[in-house]
Amino acid sequence: MLIIMKTDAKPEEVDQVIDRIASVGLGAHLSQGEERVVIGAIGEGKVALQYQDLFIRMPGVDRIVPISRPYKLASREFSPQDTVFPLDGVSIGGQGIVIIAGPCSVESRNQTLEIAQAVKEAGAHALRGGAYKPRTSPYSFQGLGEVALEVLAEVREITGLPVVTEVMAPEQVPLVAHYADVLQIGARNMQNFTLLHAAGESQKPVLLKRGISATIEELLMAAEYILSHGNRRVILCERGIRTFETSTRNTTDINAIPVLKSLSHLPVILDPSHSTGHWQYVTAIARAAIAAGADGLIVEVHHNPEQALSDGAQSLKPERFAELVAQIKAIAQAIGRDLATPQTSATQIQIPLSQRVE
Amino acid sequence: MLIIMKTDAKPEEVDQVIDRIASVGLGAHLSQGEERVVIGAIGEGKVALQYQDLFIRMPGVDRIVPISRPYKLASREFSPQDTVFPLDGVSIGGQGIVIIAGPCSVESRNQTLEIAQAVKEAGAHALRGGAYKPRTSPYSFQGLGEVALEVLAEVREITGLPVVTEVMAPEQVPLVAHYADVLQIGARNMQNFTLLHAAGESQKPVLLKRGISATIEELLMAAEYILSHGNRRVILCERGIRTFETSTRNTTDINAIPVLKSLSHLPVILDPSHSTGHWQYVTAIARAAIAAGADGLIVEVHHNPEQALSDGAQSLKPERFAELVAQIKAIAQAIGRDLATPQTSATQIQIPLSQRVE
Amino acid sequence: MLIIMKTDAKPEEVDQVIDRIASVGLGAHLSQGEERVVIGAIGEGKVALQYQDLFIRMPGVDRIVPISRPYKLASREFSPQDTVFPLDGVSIGGQGIVIIAGPCSVESRNQTLEIAQAVKEAGAHALRGGAYKPRTSPYSFQGLGEVALEVLAEVREITGLPVVTEVMAPEQVPLVAHYADVLQIGARNMQNFTLLHAAGESQKPVLLKRGISATIEELLMAAEYILSHGNRRVILCERGIRTFETSTRNTTDINAIPVLKSLSHLPVILDPSHSTGHWQYVTAIARAAIAAGADGLIVEVHHNPEQALSDGAQSLKPERFAELVAQIKAIAQAIGRDLATPQTSATQIQIPLSQRVE
Amino acid sequence: MLIIMKTDAKPEEVDQVIDRIASVGLGAHLSQGEERVVIGAIGEGKVALQYQDLFIRMPGVDRIVPISRPYKLASREFSPQDTVFPLDGVSIGGQGIVIIAGPCSVESRNQTLEIAQAVKEAGAHALRGGAYKPRTSPYSFQGLGEVALEVLAEVREITGLPVVTEVMAPEQVPLVAHYADVLQIGARNMQNFTLLHAAGESQKPVLLKRGISATIEELLMAAEYILSHGNRRVILCERGIRTFETSTRNTTDINAIPVLKSLSHLPVILDPSHSTGHWQYVTAIARAAIAAGADGLIVEVHHNPEQALSDGAQSLKPERFAELVAQIKAIAQAIGRDLATPQTSATQIQIPLSQRVE
Repeated sequence: MLIIMKTDAKPEEVDQVIDRIASVGLGAHLSQGEERVVIGAIGEGKVALQYQDLFIRMPGVDRIVPISRPYKLASREFSPQDTVFPLDGVSIGGQGIVIIAGPCSVESRNQTLEIAQAVKEAGAHALRGGAYKPRTSPYSFQGLGEVALEVLAEVREITGLPVVTEVMAPEQVPLVAHYADVLQIGARNMQNFTLLHAAGESQKPVLLKRGISATIEELLMAAEYILSHGNRRVILCERGIRTFETSTRNTTDINAIPVLKSLSHLPVILDPSHSTGHWQYVTAIARAAIAAGADGLIVEVHHNPEQALSDGAQSLKPERFAELVAQIKAIAQAIGRDLATPQTSATQIQIPLSQRVE
Repeated sequence: MLIIMKTDAKPEEVDQVIDRIASVGLGAHLSQGEERVVIGAIGEGKVALQYQDLFIRMPGVDRIVPISRPYKLASREFSPQDTVFPLDGVSIGGQGIVIIAGPCSVESRNQTLEIAQAVKEAGAHALRGGAYKPRTSPYSFQGLGEVALEVLAEVREITGLPVVTEVMAPEQVPLVAHYADVLQIGARNMQNFTLLHAAGESQKPVLLKRGISATIEELLMAAEYILSHGNRRVILCERGIRTFETSTRNTTDINAIPVLKSLSHLPVILDPSHSTGHWQYVTAIARAAIAAGADGLIVEVHHNPEQALSDGAQSLKPERFAELVAQIKAIAQAIGRDLATPQTSATQIQIPLSQRVE
Repeated sequence: MLIIMKTDAKPEEVDQVIDRIASVGLGAHLSQGEERVVIGAIGEGKVALQYQDLFIRMPGVDRIVPISRPYKLASREFSPQDTVFPLDGVSIGGQGIVIIAGPCSVESRNQTLEIAQAVKEAGAHALRGGAYKPRTSPYSFQGLGEVALEVLAEVREITGLPVVTEVMAPEQVPLVAHYADVLQIGARNMQNFTLLHAAGESQKPVLLKRGISATIEELLMAAEYILSHGNRRVILCERGIRTFETSTRNTTDINAIPVLKSLSHLPVILDPSHSTGHWQYVTAIARAAIAAGADGLIVEVHHNPEQALSDGAQSLKPERFAELVAQIKAIAQAIGRDLATPQTSATQIQIPLSQRVE
Repeated sequence: MLIIMKTDAKPEEVDQVIDRIASVGLGAHLSQGEERVVIGAIGEGKVALQYQDLFIRMPGVDRIVPISRPYKLASREFSPQDTVFPLDGVSIGGQGIVIIAGPCSVESRNQTLEIAQAVKEAGAHALRGGAYKPRTSPYSFQGLGEVALEVLAEVREITGLPVVTEVMAPEQVPLVAHYADVLQIGARNMQNFTLLHAAGESQKPVLLKRGISATIEELLMAAEYILSHGNRRVILCERGIRTFETSTRNTTDINAIPVLKSLSHLPVILDPSHSTGHWQYVTAIARAAIAAGADGLIVEVHHNPEQALSDGAQSLKPERFAELVAQIKAIAQAIGRDLATPQTSATQIQIPLSQRVE
C-alpha cells in the first residue's frame, strides 16, 4: 500500500508513519516529491487490508492507495488458465456456450415439466427454477420450498437436464444441495456472508449472481469467500445493476463481461431476463452478452407468461426461446465458438489446484 | 391498479383485459382518452401486487401503474400517530433524541467497557458494538461472536446502557436476542428475507438499516416483513446510499429523513459514521440529521481509532463525541425537541394495535 | 394525464380538480376505486406537460401520472418506419452497419491524415476528430479550433471520408457546419438547449451523444429539440452512463440499444471507446453493440496512442481497429446485416415528412 | 503521479517508463515492492494531468495514481482563509447565512414584484428569478428573456434586493451581467466550458450549480475554469444529484457541504427546492444544510404555486417561507452563526490575491 502524506505534513509525522510500518513487520520506502512525501509499505499481501485503517488516522496522512488486489483465488494472476468444469454432460467455461433456461418459479409439476421439455428441445443445457423465492413484498408468492425441489429432481430424471436453483439461507444448503446440481446465490444475498461460507463448504458448483449495486471487485470478493472455503466451482453471473435509468428494470453492465474475463479465470454468464426486465429486449441482450465474450446465459422461459406467478413480464415463450438459441448459435460461431455439446472426455476439466493463500 | 393500453390497442384487446379483471374478482372501470384507453382495476388492495403480472403481457397493454402503496403496516395511513417505544430507560420515536454510540466491533472487554463508560458520560443512551461482522473480504476480522455478546452483556450490567448489536443469520436470532436489547439488521442483509422473518418473530426491537442501494419503498417493504410477523418495534436507519460520488464512503440521503417520517409512523435514525466514512464529517452530518427531523443517531466511537480492528477512519474519539452530543442538544432545542431523558411513566408508549392485514 | 387523489381526499377537492381540468379546456373522467378516486384529464397531447404543475399542488391530489410520451417527432409512433439518410456515400439507419473512426483530437495534419488513411483502409465509412475539445480541466489541451477544421476538410479531400466533429457553442455552428459533414453534440452538451436549437436550424446531420446521466427519455427529448427546429437527420449515440462501478470509465448501457430502436425511428450507434475507457474492452463492446441491434459505431483510433494528447488509454491502434472491423462484419452477418457499402440509388433515403406538431 | 507496474512487468519495461519520465522533464523515483514496482514521477504540478496519458499505454504499466489535486485556485491549500465577498449589502461566505429566494421563472412584473416584496419582508437577502429557462422539453415555457431581465432590474430598484438570474449561453453573458447582480450557471451547464470561460471574464459574481451527476471534484474543476479566467467571486451550490431513488426529484448530497468547505475556500450554499422537488421537504432540508455548515440557501417561492409556469410542486408559499427563515435563524444561532445582516465596513471582504498558477 502507498501512504500519501499531506502537503504540509511535518518530518516527525513522516517518521511516525515509518515507525508504525516497521512495527507491523512491513518495510517502508520513502519517496520525496516536490509537493509531498509518499511512503510505500512493502510486504503487504492480503494482510494490507487490515493495516490500512492503522495509518489513515495518523497525523499528516492524506490518504491510502492500495496496490494489491483484495482477492487472490478468484484472480487471473492466481490462475492464468480459465477454470472449466462439467455441468452434468457439458463443460462450462470452455469454448462451448452453455444455456440455462426455465421458469422463474416452480409452480407445479406439470408446468415445470412442460417448460423443461420445451427448453431442452430448443437446445438448453440446464434447467433453472425457483423453489425458494426472495420477494420484496411479504405478501407475494414465496415459492413452494421442498415440494418444488422434489419436482425439480423428478423433472431432471425425465429430461436429463441438470438443475440450477436458489438457496436463500445457510441452513438450507444441505437440503438444496441434495436435490440440485448447481446452487444459485441470488443478487440480494451476494453479501450474505454466512450463506457464502456455507456454499463454500458444499461440494456443488455455485452460480453467484452479482448484487444489484455490487462493484465488480465486490463480486470477486464474494466469489473469494466461496473459493476460500474450499469450493472451486463458481460461476459468476452479471444480472444488471441499479442505476438512474428507469426504462428497463436494471441496467445490463455489459462491460462486466470482458472485465470479469480479464480479472478472473472463472466462467462468466449473463441473465438477460433480470438485466432488462422486459421480454422484448431479452434476445438482443443475450446476443450482446455472447458477442462480448460471455460463457453462457441464464434465461427465464414460461409457456404461459401471462399466468406466471412471478416475473411474467420478462419471461420468453418457448418458441421465442428457440429463436434465441438459434441466434446465439450464429453469434457464437461468428466469434469462433459454438453452443456447448456433451463431452465424453474428462480432459477438458481445468480447476486451479486447491492451494490456499498463506 | 391502472392498465394503460397502447395507442393502437384493438377493441377486442380492451375487452380481453376487462374479462381478465373480472375473472380475478376485481371491478373494471374504462376511461377513453383521445389517444388511448386506460382501465382501472378496482378492489385491489394488497393483492394487486400479484395481479400486475397477469396483465402486463396481454396484447394491447402498454404498462401498469400501481395506485396503492405495497406496504400497509409500515405506512402512515395505517397509523397516523408516531410509533413510540422504550429502549430501556428512554423512549424512541417521541420528542427526545436518542443517541446510540460505541465501537464498530467488540475487540475486548476492556476496550468495550472503556468506550461504553466514555459515551455514557458524554450523554449516549445506548451502546452499539459488533459481535458478528459482515466483512467484504474473507480475510478481514470477522468479529468475536458469542464471546463479544457476553462482553456486551457484562458492560450493560456495569454501565446500565442497553445494547444494540447486529445479527447476521436467522439461526443466530435466539442467541443474539438473549444477550441484546435491540437486534440490528445490517445494510447488506436488508433483503435477507429469512432473517427478516426470524427477527419478526423475536420479541426484541429491531434496528433496520437501509440497504446500500435500496429505495425508500424497499426499506419500508423490509420493515413490513418484520411487522407482518408480529414484531411492531422497528427503528428505520438511513446509513448512506451508493452513488457515483467517491469523495465520501457513501452519500447520506438526508431527504430520506423527512420522506420516511411522512410515509411511515416508525422512528427514524441516521448513522453518520457509515453515511460519510470520514470522522471529520460525522458531526456536521449528525447535526443535519437532527435538523432534518431524525429521532436519533447511531455513531461509531473508539478511544483509539488508529488501532481499531474495523472502521477506524470513521470513528470519533470520545472527546469529539462529547462535542457532538452538545451540538446535537443545541440543534434539538432549536427545533423544539431535546435529548431524550429517562422516562418514569409508561404512558408515552404508542404502538399500533396488532391488527393484521386481511 | 391521470390525477390520483389521496385516500382521504374530500368530495369538494375532487370537484375542484374537475373544475380546473375544464378550465384549461380538457375533459375530465372520474374513476371511483375502493381506496381513492382517479381522474383522467382527456385531450392533453403535448400540452399536458405544462398542465401537470397546475394540479400537483391542489388540495387532495396525491400524484400525477403522465400517459402520453413527452416527445413526438422522435417517437416510433410518429414514424413507424426507420429513418435512413446518407452520410456521404453510405446510408445510416438502414441494413448496413456504419463505422466512424479517427483520433480523439486533431493534433496535426500528418497525424490526422495518417490515421484517416489507416481507418479508411480498414473499412471505416467516416472520420471522427475533435477540433474543439470539452475538457474537465482548464489546464488540459483544448483543441486546435479552426485550424483543426481546415485539416479535417483537407483530409476529407484526400481520403474521401466524410467528417464528424464536435460543436460546443451555438455561435460555432455555422463555422463547424461549413467544414464538417456531421455535427457532433457531446455528452456534456446534451442539454445545452441553445446549442440544440442552433443545430436544429442547421442543414447538417447531427450526431447526438447521450449525457452521462441522461435518461433515455431525456435523450429523446434532446433529439426532439433538434427535430422540432426543422432538422430531421439526427443520429442517437449511446456512450456510457455514470454509475457506481469504477472498473471502467463509464457503464455501457447496452439495454439502450434495443430500447431506443423500439421507442424511436432514428439511427442508433454506440461509442465503445468512451463507454469503456480502456482499449482492451473496446472490441468486445463494439461486437456487443452490433449484436444488440446498433446501426453503427464511433471508435477512437490513434496510430500512436501513447503520445496522444487526449484519450490515449481508450484509443485503438490501426491494426487492432482492422481486427475490430473484421469481427463486426462477422457479427453483422450473423444477424442478417452487413457493413454498409456505398449507395448509388437514392431510393433508400427515408425521412419522416417535415410535418410539425400543432 | 505514481505509475504502478504490473506484477509481471519486465525490467526493460520499468526502464522505458523511467526514460519517458525523464524525457518530459520530470524526476523518477523507483520503489521496489515484493509484488511489483511503483514509480513516482516527481515535479508534476498541474502539468501531470496531461502526462498521465503518456504512461498508461506503456508496456508493463498497470495503472496511474494521481497525487496532486487537479484544481489549484479553488483549493483550500491555495487559500486557507474563506473567501468572503459582498452580495449587495450583505457578505457571503462569512458568519452570516445568506438566503436567496424568489420564483422559478419571471412570469410578469406584478408576479415578480409581489413575490420579491414577500420574501424581502420574510428576511431574504437576494431575489432569484429565471429569465432564460433550460427546459427538458422544447414545448415547455422557455422564459421571457430580456423582458424578464428588465422586470428583475425594476424590482431590484423598488425592493433593494440584489438579483440572481441564470445565463445559458456565452453570448448572453454581457446582457445578463448588465441587469443582474449574480450570474447563475445552471446544473445542465456546469460543464459548458465556453460558458464558464465567458463567466470567468465577467466582473459579476457567479453562482455555480453542481451538475446532476457531477462529482465534487468536477464541480471544483468547473469553478477552476471561472477562477482561472480572472473572476474570483464564485459561489458553489449543491442542488441534488441523480441516484436510483425516485421518491424525491433528486438526492440532496448533504455530505457535499462539509466536503466542499474542507476542500475549498469558496462559499457554499444549498438549493433545497431542486434537491428535493417537493415543497413539503424543503424546510427540513434547508435546516439540515445550515446545520451541516452551508453559508446560505437559494429557495423557490411563489405566491400562487398552483398557477406557476414552472416548478410549482417545489415552490414554497410566502407564509411558509417566512417560517423557514425563522427556523434557519434558530439553527444558525444554535451553531454560533446568524442570518446575514447588512455590512457597513468593507473590512470583511476576503478574496485570495489574483496570483495565477504558473
